Amino acid sequence: MKLSINEIIKIVPALVTGDHDFEITGLSSFDDAGSHDLTFACDPTYLARLNRCRAGAVIVPESFSPQPLVSLNCVLLKTSNPKLSFFKILELFHPKKPLIAHVHGTAILGRNLRSGEGTRVEANVVIGDDVVIGNHVHIMPNVYIANGCVLGDYTVIKPNVTLMEGTILGHHVIVHPGSVIGSDGYGFAQNAQIHEKLAHTGHVKIGNHVEIGACNTIDKGTLGVTSLGNGVKTDNLVHIAHNVKIGDNTLVVAQVGIAGSTCIGKNVIIAGKAGISGHLTIGDYAIVGPYAGVSKDVPANEIVSGIPHMPHKTWLKVSSIVPRLPEMRKKISSLERKMKNLENKSE
Amino acid sequence: MKLSINEIIKIVPALVTGDHDFEITGLSSFDDAGSHDLTFACDPTYLARLNRCRAGAVIVPESFSPQPLVSLNCVLLKTSNPKLSFFKILELFHPKKPLIAHVHGTAILGRNLRSGEGTRVEANVVIGDDVVIGNHVHIMPNVYIANGCVLGDYTVIKPNVTLMEGTILGHHVIVHPGSVIGSDGYGFAQNAQIHEKLAHTGHVKIGNHVEIGACNTIDKGTLGVTSLGNGVKTDNLVHIAHNVKIGDNTLVVAQVGIAGSTCIGKNVIIAGKAGISGHLTIGDYAIVGPYAGVSKDVPANEIVSGIPHMPHKTWLKVSSIVPRLPEMRKKISSLERKMKNLENKSE
Amino acid sequence: MKLSINEIIKIVPALVTGDHDFEITGLSSFDDAGSHDLTFACDPTYLARLNRCRAGAVIVPESFSPQPLVSLNCVLLKTSNPKLSFFKILELFHPKKPLIAHVHGTAILGRNLRSGEGTRVEANVVIGDDVVIGNHVHIMPNVYIANGCVLGDYTVIKPNVTLMEGTILGHHVIVHPGSVIGSDGYGFAQNAQIHEKLAHTGHVKIGNHVEIGACNTIDKGTLGVTSLGNGVKTDNLVHIAHNVKIGDNTLVVAQVGIAGSTCIGKNVIIAGKAGISGHLTIGDYAIVGPYAGVSKDVPANEIVSGIPHMPHKTWLKVSSIVPRLPEMRKKISSLERKMKNLENKSE
Repeated sequence: MKLSINEIIKIVPALVTGDHDFEITGLSSFDDAGSHDLTFACDPTYLARLNRCRAGAVIVPESFSPQPLVSLNCVLLKTSNPKLSFFKILELFHPKKPLIAHVHGTAILGRNLRSGEGTRVEANVVIGDDVVIGNHVHIMPNVYIANGCVLGDYTVIKPNVTLMEGTILGHHVIVHPGSVIGSDGYGFAQNAQIHEKLAHTGHVKIGNHVEIGACNTIDKGTLGVTSLGNGVKTDNLVHIAHNVKIGDNTLVVAQVGIAGSTCIGKNVIIAGKAGISGHLTIGDYAIVGPYAGVSKDVPANEIVSGIPHMPHKTWLKVSSIVPRLPEMRKKISSLERKMKNLENKSE
Repeated sequence: MKLSINEIIKIVPALVTGDHDFEITGLSSFDDAGSHDLTFACDPTYLARLNRCRAGAVIVPESFSPQPLVSLNCVLLKTSNPKLSFFKILELFHPKKPLIAHVHGTAILGRNLRSGEGTRVEANVVIGDDVVIGNHVHIMPNVYIANGCVLGDYTVIKPNVTLMEGTILGHHVIVHPGSVIGSDGYGFAQNAQIHEKLAHTGHVKIGNHVEIGACNTIDKGTLGVTSLGNGVKTDNLVHIAHNVKIGDNTLVVAQVGIAGSTCIGKNVIIAGKAGISGHLTIGDYAIVGPYAGVSKDVPANEIVSGIPHMPHKTWLKVSSIVPRLPEMRKKISSLERKMKNLENKSE
Repeated sequence: MKLSINEIIKIVPALVTGDHDFEITGLSSFDDAGSHDLTFACDPTYLARLNRCRAGAVIVPESFSPQPLVSLNCVLLKTSNPKLSFFKILELFHPKKPLIAHVHGTAILGRNLRSGEGTRVEANVVIGDDVVIGNHVHIMPNVYIANGCVLGDYTVIKPNVTLMEGTILGHHVIVHPGSVIGSDGYGFAQNAQIHEKLAHTGHVKIGNHVEIGACNTIDKGTLGVTSLGNGVKTDNLVHIAHNVKIGDNTLVVAQVGIAGSTCIGKNVIIAGKAGISGHLTIGDYAIVGPYAGVSKDVPANEIVSGIPHMPHKTWLKVSSIVPRLPEMRKKISSLERKMKNLENKSE
């Protein structure tokens, strides 16, 4: 496949410096790009070594201007969001295969299934009773969908996923392989030494344009709902406990755990491996740093880090001091000795 | 469905304040409850705002007496364990569907299967040779059960679970979706630069009334057994390595990892995301705090937190001081300056 | 089964002290061994209590000599690597069942499958188009293998594994149950409030003799490859993000997370629950301690611990001081009071 710069900018508008007829034959990362590849550079470290990039064309920010004495051999395309522009062009080179409607002969469908048009159900899928599936939904092999689930239009369920009873997914949702949505939460009542299992009558409700990573576990509400808003994206191996609520466009990075009944606002970022205790509120636009352990509410727009969490700026100072604790301890001992000396003298 | 207070207290005995003929039409959480709902309140924060609860009836502790001037519109039911009482009534409103014995036509059964009565095996289940299954066992779709496994009565295996060779489960066990029990442990012998795989000849043995969360990984013993006692409950994404032993009624919260050959007592609580190193002993009734990293034995009844762990009380003090480390460092510098001044003067 | 010491040392050469005709009937761990069992002892704590071991025979290091006054009743076998020797003999007692070539009738094979000889495909396996499978490969039940995957000779895919498009596995690879290899990475482009999904055109490439634990998630490259070298061993619940590169013989212990584009050298050890941020380089033979959070490059041969990481030796000192922070704080306050006193006096 070949596309000239002129053809490309018809689809992804850009300000071009260089040959408009130059032909792109592939797309690649900054360091791997060859002489007829297109790549992109956003942040200063990449832009600073643009002269060493072997790509035929590079998408750069609108604000970028090359340093005066540096000669660039590549065509420059300036856009307001180079990363987004690059991946839009990538889709031209790697077009999605159209979804061919089909129900595989080995799929087992429950009673009272309502299914839209253009939907594809692959081998060994098992679907319970009273399930509602929208249009152009793709259910991949070995998936289990329990009674009463609802799947919105254009949703994709990857292989070996389990959706337990009553799970509701919006449209354009992607659930990656191995994930479990809607299983019972960790809810027990102590009865002397015994932990008695509580009945779980709630469910999980997930909004539109949500992406759930591989091997996530999202528990149903004990009573009521565990909910993820529109545009939420979770990475792999994320745990979301019963009755958690997550607002729109929040990012939950790999191996994060969120305990029961915690409410997380919209456009929050929870970085990798962080944990959030139960029954807390994390405000909109807050950021929880990697490895953090959040044990109290976090106000909107705050950035926190550490176990237990503290303001990120404090944590930066603290973490530069921690390795110097042995030195601090020596200084205190030395001060104590000197103090004793002085006190003795002054007596 | 409707039940009067009088009907309810025939099943769950309680001391009633208010109208015995009041009818309950549903059960709900404290904050979502409506005028004909039943809810419950155990801890002081909920009891303190009971006058703002819209529920028709509330189960409260026996010790509870409303404040003198507060008028409550709801019926009060006093029991010794409100949470347990509430969930017992919940089961009346949401009765479990009876398990209908059946083996689905797509299930693949190995040789020499011994199976009890009333057992249900769903679609695409694959069962190896020499497996023993008790009475009223429920095996859900896409489960794999390897050769030589034993499943006790009333046990439930949820979808997409994998039980590897020789796994023994007691009765009334629940294994949530995606979990893997009995796979090879992480055992290698170093041979120059190469890590040579060790043969794993052990197995996993799990007691009665155990609940295993979603996407757990419980490895078989390298030699001998990995064992979980009766009443153990694990949350989601828990890792239990080869030859670990866990005592009765111990709780293992989400994303905990327990390394090889560690022995954990009975009635222990291991909070979310904690890790426990290999070859350790954790005593009965010990509590390991969230995010803790346990690197040495923990005596019975101890509460520990931190990485590496320390007594929880110490950790509480430590964690209130850590954010003040920059301030402490400044104080030390200031003391050093003043000390120099005084020393100069006194010379 | 019975083997005399003489028969054993024909297969695993060893220097014998004791009766060469003594017969071994089983193998066991040090503490569980009985009078006709073989066991092994490597480290000093086991060797020191060899006189209390009830085993009939014990494999010990070549350098071992029993203390003068201690009488040992067992036969001693000295080898250069007792653990390795023990597990080689274990394989004699528990020989692997030969793999019987077979494709189960329920397996669903895609178009243009090229498959070697001696390969076994079990029940409910679903294989996509254009897949290449080597000789003597074992694919266990309920596995999904997407289009364009390549599996080398003698590779074993355990049940409920998902291999997404284009995944390449070397020979003698083992993938434990529930693992997901080759799913989309966590890659989005911010467009105002929205996180737009990026097309993922890369894949995963795994070398020879690699073992992947249960419930791992290994993402494909966004562009290009996520790669694991020969002899890499991952434990359970490990997360490896898009475009990570891992060198030969590196060990990745349970619940570790490695963020996108990080390069890890050969013969590295990453201990349990550690996290490594994205775009970092970890040098050959480096060791990352348990629970560590690595936020910067780690040079070759370094040992690091802590969050954020520091040299392991520093961390050992620091972690012995942290529990004494309350005491340090009191000392500083006391010094400040005394300083004030002295200053007052000296005025």
